[in-house]
Amino acid sequence: MTSRPPLHCLRCARAADSFAGCRTCAAEGIGVNTMPPLADLAGVDLAAYPGGPWGLPTALPVSGPPVTLGEGNTPCVRLRTDRDQGGSAEGELWLKYEGANPTGSHKDRAMAVGVAAAVAAGADTVVAASSGNAGAAAAAYAARAGLRCVVFTNERVPAGLRAQIDALGAERRVHPGAAGARNAAMAQAVEEHHWYPLTSYSSPSPGGNPYANEGYKSVAYELARDFAGRWLDAVVVPTSRADLLAGIGRGFRELAAAGLIAHEPRLVAAEPSAAAPYTAALRRPDRAEQERTRVAAQPTVAFSLGEERPCWQGLDALWRTAGAAVALDDEAITAEGRRLAAEGLVLEPSSAVGSAVARDLARTPGSLVVAIGTATGLKGLVG
Amino acid sequence: MTSRPPLHCLRCARAADSFAGCRTCAAEGIGVNTMPPLADLAGVDLAAYPGGPWGLPTALPVSGPPVTLGEGNTPCVRLRTDRDQGGSAEGELWLKYEGANPTGSHKDRAMAVGVAAAVAAGADTVVAASSGNAGAAAAAYAARAGLRCVVFTNERVPAGLRAQIDALGAERRVHPGAAGARNAAMAQAVEEHHWYPLTSYSSPSPGGNPYANEGYKSVAYELARDFAGRWLDAVVVPTSRADLLAGIGRGFRELAAAGLIAHEPRLVAAEPSAAAPYTAALRRPDRAEQERTRVAAQPTVAFSLGEERPCWQGLDALWRTAGAAVALDDEAITAEGRRLAAEGLVLEPSSAVGSAVARDLARTPGSLVVAIGTATGLKGLVG
Ligand SMILES: [Zn+2]
Ligand SMILES: [Zn+2]
Repeated sequence: MTSRPPLHCLRCARAADSFAGCRTCAAEGIGVNTMPPLADLAGVDLAAYPGGPWGLPTALPVSGPPVTLGEGNTPCVRLRTDRDQGGSAEGELWLKYEGANPTGSHKDRAMAVGVAAAVAAGADTVVAASSGNAGAAAAAYAARAGLRCVVFTNERVPAGLRAQIDALGAERRVHPGAAGARNAAMAQAVEEHHWYPLTSYSSPSPGGNPYANEGYKSVAYELARDFAGRWLDAVVVPTSRADLLAGIGRGFRELAAAGLIAHEPRLVAAEPSAAAPYTAALRRPDRAEQERTRVAAQPTVAFSLGEERPCWQGLDALWRTAGAAVALDDEAITAEGRRLAAEGLVLEPSSAVGSAVARDLARTPGSLVVAIGTATGLKGLVG
Repeated sequence: MTSRPPLHCLRCARAADSFAGCRTCAAEGIGVNTMPPLADLAGVDLAAYPGGPWGLPTALPVSGPPVTLGEGNTPCVRLRTDRDQGGSAEGELWLKYEGANPTGSHKDRAMAVGVAAAVAAGADTVVAASSGNAGAAAAAYAARAGLRCVVFTNERVPAGLRAQIDALGAERRVHPGAAGARNAAMAQAVEEHHWYPLTSYSSPSPGGNPYANEGYKSVAYELARDFAGRWLDAVVVPTSRADLLAGIGRGFRELAAAGLIAHEPRLVAAEPSAAAPYTAALRRPDRAEQERTRVAAQPTVAFSLGEERPCWQGLDALWRTAGAAVALDDEAITAEGRRLAAEGLVLEPSSAVGSAVARDLARTPGSLVVAIGTATGLKGLVG
């Protein structure tokens, strides 16, 4: 076991005693993650940064050996806008294609770091609760590190993802119905068997494993490197528990603190209307009400998304950048998916939520907007 | 229409009048590609090369605008070897993971360039004959460029690939049975409708579109950049029509001619035993017999591979580097696929052919061997 940076509640600053989020804030009904301190990026040469979490290991809360499958350093692709079809003047719309990661989603950035943290902690088994890409990523990185992996899923996992998790040798345990039973089983495994948790298992959810989440900062580093010297107006992130959104926000904060970027871009949470707690929260007048928002989540084509409450880490990221949350109905999400395919990109419906919202923001002349395309659509095409 | 570099037969140096390969050599029963001159890389700063075909546009035979979805610059992952499990001293084994490309295979590097060449030639329709990844890549880049795409397939296309081609809006035409009917249909489309051919359609096959194939040189440039200053012993390439093998060979030749690498690595063709024309050819005593080799191809789990005759461009690449060809049976291929998955990587069986062969070469102490992992296994997991 190596020493790890201490975790503190993002909201009340109390020290944490587990990965279950802040118990004090949870008692108020608010899910708040407990995170390590921000990294100091002073002196970093961004132009020489090779991308990925392990491209800047000093920014990570893990001192042991890296666990890597070549994650990160994903491409940015400029999308066509209405202007290209003869519309009026518009800004630039880019898609950062996270489907290029080893298991096909952004989750690889987190699981690379989370599994390295598990190894450093001396764990022999990691566990993730996921009906989607996180399970596949956990399985892959656990395999890479030689750890056992158990994935708690529900019945809604697409066939492609199921097959991927199985191929990677993880043990898949299906918990039908509500998330409560799945969380309870995972909490028990963590507390009784000392399995290392890679995802959230408490309610209200604080968000994922704090060490793993630091892997998402690399998205911000890569954007800062690739758009060096340009004014990035907004980064749009498909959002559920806001691990990615918050991680990107932390990355930009570190970059700004070190003088490596001139400003932090606005962060925008993109959600399906069927389950849009951030959009609902930001409509409320004050933060005390916003952080206690609860919506009724319905099924959506964007199957990777869908929470009832905003995770506090996500609200924090939006507040800090004067950000916004935008919800789109399934029809708009499906239409954007077709639009992306017509341009050569097959992404998950959840990713299309982000590019649809970004497309609207990029209507402002002179603007520069990046959508995070979170995952390949290959896993959902069949079955 | 912009001017394009002239094509000459690799074997007899005659000028070409089409993309159908050298007619003179074909009359001798030998399929030989006609290629543009090698590029001059003098003065290139490899350390600053951003990867991908368009990272070095002057090395490409297309002067029009790039067509890109962010292809190339794929990660190299070091694989575990027996030594890591306590075996005797071994070399280093690396996998270049081409599944990270936008449509999940190395074909994206070629289709990015081939579709740009089609646009420069004024084509409105591109056509590819493929039962696999080339069809998906053609569909994606055609969509990106706003061209119509027709893909001639057979019944053996896995469901995931079929769905991907359909999602990308290409027109899929199934030609059951032998390749002959498919080739004839494609030749007719090229000659009568002036559709732009992205893959081979003559017999014996010379290999794919010469301009498109130049996109594969970028694999060599990336390896030279990533292993700068190290002695790369061998690059192992799953081989069928040898477009990738020959392209990588051309890339290394350009690098060596410009003094950017100290030596060209040995190239090794990896084949399924069920269809192993290069292995059969190299067993024959002289080149005149080697280039006229023909084997009976059987079905194999490595469904992306399987030719009856060696394409001359592949033999040429092997001859020039004192290379080799190695064939493995389906059992060995399947076992290697499981071994890769146990390390977190889900690849096509065709890719496992390469890493299995490379694994054997890397048993030599001190050696440095790279296998090209040509495609993600996600498309074949379901259906
Ligand atoms: Zn708290
Ligand atoms: Zn010839």
